[in-house]
This record gives sequence, structure tokens and C-alpha cells, in this order.
Amino acid sequence: MSDEIDALTTVGELRQAVAAFVNARDWQPFHTPKNLSMSIAIEAAELMEHFQWLTPDEALVAVSKPAERAAVDDELADIVIYCLSLSNALELDVSSAVLGKLHTNEHRYPAGEFQGRFRRPQRNKR
Amino acid sequence: MSDEIDALTTVGELRQAVAAFVNARDWQPFHTPKNLSMSIAIEAAELMEHFQWLTPDEALVAVSKPAERAAVDDELADIVIYCLSLSNALELDVSSAVLGKLHTNEHRYPAGEFQGRFRRPQRNKR
Amino acid sequence: MSDEIDALTTVGELRQAVAAFVNARDWQPFHTPKNLSMSIAIEAAELMEHFQWLTPDEALVAVSKPAERAAVDDELADIVIYCLSLSNALELDVSSAVLGKLHTNEHRYPAGEFQGRFRRPQRNKR
Amino acid sequence: MSDEIDALTTVGELRQAVAAFVNARDWQPFHTPKNLSMSIAIEAAELMEHFQWLTPDEALVAVSKPAERAAVDDELADIVIYCLSLSNALELDVSSAVLGKLHTNEHRYPAGEFQGRFRRPQRNKR
Repeated sequence: MSDEIDALTTVGELRQAVAAFVNARDWQPFHTPKNLSMSIAIEAAELMEHFQWLTPDEALVAVSKPAERAAVDDELADIVIYCLSLSNALELDVSSAVLGKLHTNEHRYPAGEFQGRFRRPQRNKR
Repeated sequence: MSDEIDALTTVGELRQAVAAFVNARDWQPFHTPKNLSMSIAIEAAELMEHFQWLTPDEALVAVSKPAERAAVDDELADIVIYCLSLSNALELDVSSAVLGKLHTNEHRYPAGEFQGRFRRPQRNKR
Repeated sequence: MSDEIDALTTVGELRQAVAAFVNARDWQPFHTPKNLSMSIAIEAAELMEHFQWLTPDEALVAVSKPAERAAVDDELADIVIYCLSLSNALELDVSSAVLGKLHTNEHRYPAGEFQGRFRRPQRNKR
Repeated sequence: MSDEIDALTTVGELRQAVAAFVNARDWQPFHTPKNLSMSIAIEAAELMEHFQWLTPDEALVAVSKPAERAAVDDELADIVIYCLSLSNALELDVSSAVLGKLHTNEHRYPAGEFQGRFRRPQRNKR
């Protein structure tokens, strides 16, 4: 896992970097929850565009090529930036929200039952 | 800015929490770049659903109500979790990508020129 | 309502035009349900991009300008084209599906109760 | 191709059915271009949700099962309904837009050059 900077950077530091960028341009009036939810969806679509016509295997090959990979990283960064800006607009502690949701999901998707499957096994076939 | 836990939590720690959740269920084969790009878009749409029919002002009122706000936080957490899982799948250092993209955007959208506007001012009206 | 050609064109004729375009390029293997669902979402995001930072009123002004309007029409055409291609891939009668869904919604959202509102009025405030 | 009703139904008739539904509820103020672009994206995401974790082949199997297929048809109908409502709001002739865009794409993607491929073949490998 490539995480040299991630190991040293707090979520709060990233949020502050995004806030500084937005504030320097007086973009807070644009960065409303409604607009930012659209922005996240728009950037997510730009990410999907890289994989739209590829099989899952072809998509893995694509992200192994430096130019394609750089473009994908760029789209993912855009999504995260808008997520952090929305966190700032909502004054949401992202880490608490993420760790809390993972905790909830631990109970909703017990590891034993969902091993290698994303749907609850059916007791009786219909 | 509510960021007590964000101030103490590194991006790497969140990524590891997500990786542990995915690995405990052997979900890595599902968490391909193509599938995760769809997942981010799907969760972004669930976030938009909260604001779909509201004016921007009504959306601000909505997120001030605890029940609505908790649901919004939950959707945002889902998006971030999938972003972190994609970072894990790609072995992408998120902090570098985000800080690098902000740096690029500093040049693309000079603060002086984009003050309070999201489009470059036109020199000559047509 | 501008619908001179719409009044003369059957849904089946549009579907056939899309099918002819796809078949002439042997694109059926790409036009799978999974890929086309992504394509619709991607084009929907390109449509949203035109309204992302605008207030609802500014968006109405935007679509009254010919250049912006032409771009919006173009995005909407892309979405419809992918919807029709998915209908072809699924061999779905679109008109039946649309009229059937409207019928269902007539019962789900009784006109009297949902007059001017998109949520069921609450009997008791909490 | 299952298109018995599609062969008999004009696009204009479907648009009028959608307009009647919206008008009976006085929903025109909600059905703005900005909100409808979000609505299309939201319904597209609900469609994607059916294929999110499936391989392309598994997705084809899924849509061959009546219950799954009915749910997919329902999502596609929702997307088309919002597209038609946006056409009504914009007073856009959908058939002209679709046929015009296909015509443009005939030139952009010449059938000979794009046979079985969605990207222009590269003359020189780099």
C-alpha cells in the first residue's frame, strides 16, 4: 500500500487545505450541500468514464498504464476534494463518520456470513 | 469546524480501517476499479436524493435537522469509504493526490481572477 | 410544447435508428446492461455539469441562451439514446414500461394529496 | 425486439402522458432543469445498483430472471420519464434531438473505422 504521505497526514490537515483553497476564492456560496452533492456525482461519472466500455480485467490493465493511471488518480482526487469541502460546509468530522459507518457495517454484514459474497446466503432456494 | 477526531486521525489509518473491513470479508475481488467507480457514483446519487427537490436554501434548512443531517452524514461516509477502498485497490496515496490536485488548481484558478466566481471573467462581451 | 417531429415519430422508430447505429459498428458486445447503466449515468452527469453551480433561476436563464441550450439538448439526446439502446439490449417495450410506471405512480402519489408537494403531508407534527 | 406498443406510440404521446401526470400534481415548479438533471442521475444510479457487483456475464444472467428484470425495467422507465419531463420543461423535440445526434455521431464515428471498437485505431504505436 502506497501510503507514505497518508501515514503522516491527518484528515483535518486535508480538510484545512481544501478550506483554504475555497476561502481564498470566496467560493463558499457555491459550495452548498446541494451543489456539492452534484459535484461529487459529476466527478464520480468522470471516473467511471475511464472504465465504461472495459471489462473488469481490461480496467485493471488500464490502471496499470501510467498515463491512464494518472488520469484516474486525478478524478479520484477531485471526488475526495469535494467530499472534504462538503464536510467543511457541514462541519462534519469525517473520521468519526467513516469509523462509525464501518462499525455499523460490521454488524450489518457479519464477516462469517458475507465471506466472499456480497449478499446474504439464501436459506431456502425458491 | 468540527474536527476533533479528524485532527488526530491520519488518512492512512482510515484507509487501513477500510482495508480491514474489506479483507475480513474477502471482498477484494468485487472491489475492482470499475465496480468501485460505480459504487461511488451510486452513493453520490443517494446523497443527492436528499436535496433533489429542494432549493439551495431549503437544503441548508434540511441539513440543520438532526435526523436529516444524520442520514446525509451517513451517505457522505459511504462515498468516502468507497474512495478509500479504491485508493487501496490502486495503492494510491490519497493525501499526495489531493494536495497535488489543489496545487494544480491554484494555477488553473488564480485566486485573484476567480474571486467569487467560478468562471473566468470574459474580457470582451459578445 | 415543441413536438412537431415527436408527434409523427414512434418510439419504435427511434429505437430502430439507435439499433441501426449500434449494429453498423458491431457495438452490441459493448452495449451490455452493466455498461449502458454506466453510460446513462455518465451522460446524466454531463447534463448536470451545466447546472452544477447555478441557482435554479440562473439555470433557467442559462437554458434560454441558444449556445447553452444546444449543449443541454445534446446531453439529453445522449441520455435518451443510451436508454433506447438498453431497451434494445433488454428487448423492452419502452412505451409499456413508461405508461405502466405512470399508472403505478398515479396510485402511489394521489393527485389530491400531492398537489404542489412532493412529500405526503404529515398528519401529526413530531 | 419487443416493441408492439412502441410501434404504435409516438414520442409525443409519451411526453403528453408525463406532462399530464406532472400537471395534475402542480409539480412543474419542482421540475426545473437543475432538479431534473439530478433526478435522471439518481435514477441512473438506481439502475446501476442492480449491476454494481456483477461481472458483465452475471449481469446478463440477472436480467434473464423475471423479478430482477421487472426491477430493471422499472428503473429504466423512471429515467425515461424524467427525460421526457425535462423535454417538456425545455420544450425540446426529443425525436429531432435524438435523430440529429445520431446523424452527428455517424460522422464522428465512421462505421468502417469503429467496427467492433469504441476508440479510433492508433496509426502509430508510441
